[in-house]
Amino acid sequence: MKPDGGSLIGFGSSGPGGVAFKAFDPVRDQPIEPSFLSAVGDDVERAVKLAAEAAPAWAKLSGAERNRFLRAIADKLEGKVNDLVERAMLETGLPEARCRGEVARTAGQLRLYGETAERGDWLDARIETALPDRKPLPKPDHRSMLRAIGPVVVFGSSNFPFAYSVAGGDTASAFAAGCPVIVKAHPAHPGTSELVGRLILHAVRECGLPEGTFSLLFDAGFDVGQALVRHPLVKAVGFTGSVRGGRALTDLAAARPEPIPVYAEMGSINPVFILPGALAERGAAIVDGLHASATLNVGQFCTNPGLIVLQRSPEAEKFVQALSAKLAATPPGAMLTPGIRKNFVAHTAERAHQAGVKVLVQAPAAPACSAAPVWFETDELDFLGNRALSTEIFGPSSLVVWCRDQDGMLQVARELEGSLTATVHAGAAEAAGTGPLVDVLAAKAGRLILNGYPTGLEVSHAIVHAGPYPATSDGGRSTSVGTRALNRWTRLVCYQNFADDLLPPELKNANPLGLQRLVNGQWSRQPLG
Amino acid sequence: MKPDGGSLIGFGSSGPGGVAFKAFDPVRDQPIEPSFLSAVGDDVERAVKLAAEAAPAWAKLSGAERNRFLRAIADKLEGKVNDLVERAMLETGLPEARCRGEVARTAGQLRLYGETAERGDWLDARIETALPDRKPLPKPDHRSMLRAIGPVVVFGSSNFPFAYSVAGGDTASAFAAGCPVIVKAHPAHPGTSELVGRLILHAVRECGLPEGTFSLLFDAGFDVGQALVRHPLVKAVGFTGSVRGGRALTDLAAARPEPIPVYAEMGSINPVFILPGALAERGAAIVDGLHASATLNVGQFCTNPGLIVLQRSPEAEKFVQALSAKLAATPPGAMLTPGIRKNFVAHTAERAHQAGVKVLVQAPAAPACSAAPVWFETDELDFLGNRALSTEIFGPSSLVVWCRDQDGMLQVARELEGSLTATVHAGAAEAAGTGPLVDVLAAKAGRLILNGYPTGLEVSHAIVHAGPYPATSDGGRSTSVGTRALNRWTRLVCYQNFADDLLPPELKNANPLGLQRLVNGQWSRQPLG
Repeated sequence: MKPDGGSLIGFGSSGPGGVAFKAFDPVRDQPIEPSFLSAVGDDVERAVKLAAEAAPAWAKLSGAERNRFLRAIADKLEGKVNDLVERAMLETGLPEARCRGEVARTAGQLRLYGETAERGDWLDARIETALPDRKPLPKPDHRSMLRAIGPVVVFGSSNFPFAYSVAGGDTASAFAAGCPVIVKAHPAHPGTSELVGRLILHAVRECGLPEGTFSLLFDAGFDVGQALVRHPLVKAVGFTGSVRGGRALTDLAAARPEPIPVYAEMGSINPVFILPGALAERGAAIVDGLHASATLNVGQFCTNPGLIVLQRSPEAEKFVQALSAKLAATPPGAMLTPGIRKNFVAHTAERAHQAGVKVLVQAPAAPACSAAPVWFETDELDFLGNRALSTEIFGPSSLVVWCRDQDGMLQVARELEGSLTATVHAGAAEAAGTGPLVDVLAAKAGRLILNGYPTGLEVSHAIVHAGPYPATSDGGRSTSVGTRALNRWTRLVCYQNFADDLLPPELKNANPLGLQRLVNGQWSRQPLG
Repeated sequence: MKPDGGSLIGFGSSGPGGVAFKAFDPVRDQPIEPSFLSAVGDDVERAVKLAAEAAPAWAKLSGAERNRFLRAIADKLEGKVNDLVERAMLETGLPEARCRGEVARTAGQLRLYGETAERGDWLDARIETALPDRKPLPKPDHRSMLRAIGPVVVFGSSNFPFAYSVAGGDTASAFAAGCPVIVKAHPAHPGTSELVGRLILHAVRECGLPEGTFSLLFDAGFDVGQALVRHPLVKAVGFTGSVRGGRALTDLAAARPEPIPVYAEMGSINPVFILPGALAERGAAIVDGLHASATLNVGQFCTNPGLIVLQRSPEAEKFVQALSAKLAATPPGAMLTPGIRKNFVAHTAERAHQAGVKVLVQAPAAPACSAAPVWFETDELDFLGNRALSTEIFGPSSLVVWCRDQDGMLQVARELEGSLTATVHAGAAEAAGTGPLVDVLAAKAGRLILNGYPTGLEVSHAIVHAGPYPATSDGGRSTSVGTRALNRWTRLVCYQNFADDLLPPELKNANPLGLQRLVNGQWSRQPLG
């Protein structure tokens, strides 16, 4: 299974195409064959039109049918895991174990969201039965639930070639919710994208689903993405990437005659607060844990711990020395793309010159597309006075902030922008006193971690991958990971005074799908009496 | 209890203030004492700062405490119903029965949302317990739920002086969700607003809640509203009004450095499709029902049926003649404000000159602030070619669209913009065949009504008051009426690896609040084993 370089539009392929581009091997520092053709306006139009035509049929697919489709995609990913991993390793420089693990995770995610769709409880079905004799006015019968919103556009991310890309979390949750999907492939791994896209199309055919269920568009630049977000038939957008990219899309979507939601997962510094007791009890373990979390896959995670907040003390200084030594001994690794590496070099160079900032660790210049850890330290007051120090640097760079005391740590917490995560390490006797810090952090992040590390994200019913702006564009009202992700691709619809045979199965008296429903204020799986 | 004309800022009042304005009695066509002082920048700053200071305490209030507060407000509204109704009638021209009914509805809404807060199931609490022995990696404990978003700004509407104003649905749902509220009073009923605001403040003190729980700001113009929406400490906005006003606020909020959600309930034409069988079976009843729905309170409802779609036939023409006769005999009524009446006159005059549009009913010019029904008719083709005919005219005006056949009705449905409601009247033998029309309308409106009328909105668990843009600014993903309205004022927060005593009560093992929670994929009210 090899990519051939064309966009996939419904069951066809793209027209003559625009600018050609190639993927790049960051390990060998060279381009990879074949060329990929950027899509053009006509391709966008065709993909969106097909999706819009497929949308009504998609909205009426049963949860069981959607689950069958998602399982078929998962099976196909696993069936072709060798081809997929080979190409992804070439295009991303990520190691084999990581790529294999990510395919497994992506398949698991597809199956979990499929099961959720089939079970159907997520639809929030609600029924209020009629009271024809109520005074002064009769009460009509009302039944409501979430329904699919229509065609969804997904932007693949650079750093997860599977789990947040073509068949990743946004695509899987949109399919599970009943929406056709158009993916704008990330240009850093077009071959991986095409291979996954073809597997999705096999599943579409195998499950007898309409053309327009899925399309995949390539683009070396931004035109295709912008045209998709502007298209009147597109109803929602999923994005994982930088604040700059995400904000450009949310601004475009907000300016449409009919604004649409953009669920963008963007920048996050993921602060880690380490209290003195934690250092005293298990400083060495935290050195190891934090080092692993901050350097895994060259620090290229949205949950990378980018800010380490400490109270100054001899123990804390020893802790930072040990961590620094370990960081300095970390071999460089290939970053995902030359562009990401270029930004890493530029942003770390810029940070080194900020007032009050000292370089803590900086390895000698790494070859080609590689990077090694570059860490900084600064004081509470310098940090609080300089917004530029709150910005995420994507890659293996973090900033240690030295505080004078616990109040200083609280002050730093209060001034933080939104993050995906916030972590507190506390000693056994300290934990009970972390309430005020945790309360502040609960207003700053979507996931609070006690005595753990932010990287390594569970895909589950309870997980939240979101946070106040700029972590996510909607301020953390929804999550891009976990089964609540389905809710993003829906709107509410209520049926008033409908006869039972005219209602969708989810709302019928007999409750044929066995859903949990809120019936006259009581949650129940029973049929209506 | 009489208004005295000043903004209410926390437990204090406004400073010297800006431009003075008075309410206007649309029945007697004269201003009403006293003068109200517009708030100024300092007042906005003080109100927002107090709200932000109160927000952390508010987010931690138990559902029971919030319920107690909402019940206290409801009791106080009912206790002062005579004073409130007297002032509201003066300021709005609405009849006494409507005003009394609206106070009762507002109190009921406060109590329903309070009960919902206390019961707590709406929080979507979820728990995944740890699997320390899982391979290849242990699974940590994750617990998540909705949490209050912070200070909320509510814009009172012109047409519901109680139910969508100072203590209306947005305020009640934001309090129930755990957020402090700042209301920008609608300048059409400032006295009613002040009286209700004072009752809320009595309840704040009685319940021992912090200053900053509630403020009420007056403004004759737009400065205060804009300053509130721009303020960095404000986290969400509720609005009920025109598309123009709502869009201006969503654009402002989207352009902030940190964008925030604006839940705006805006324009809606509420199409009514009447099939031939319905006319044959109960044409006379539909004449009465539709007339009542379209003329109640001078048509000043967001659910006013503004578009009547019919297949041309002798029966349908007879039906429209009967309806027209009834409309022509409808006495004029006072509109809410001179501005609303001016717009009604201008927009109906404009519509009368649109190509292919004929005046069906137009009473002689009504005196002062009054208006009588002005209805139009047009053909399918003229309607489809002219977007201006899809715009809501606020007041007693509707447009009859004549279609050649059922396909024509379907075509009209397909071209509609978003609405709060869409109605189908079908005969007994026709109902089974309405599937295709209902499917199209399900993509166009948040509430589908079979053989009923759009006005008269239940406040319940199952109701949806929302729709695709421009009916609501968020495209119908949330509702402004019903208990789901609480969800708008929240974000998701997840706790990873927290000891039981550090978790909020909603997520503790013992389940002390008896919530329904999703525990390892199963919904349950049980404590954890």
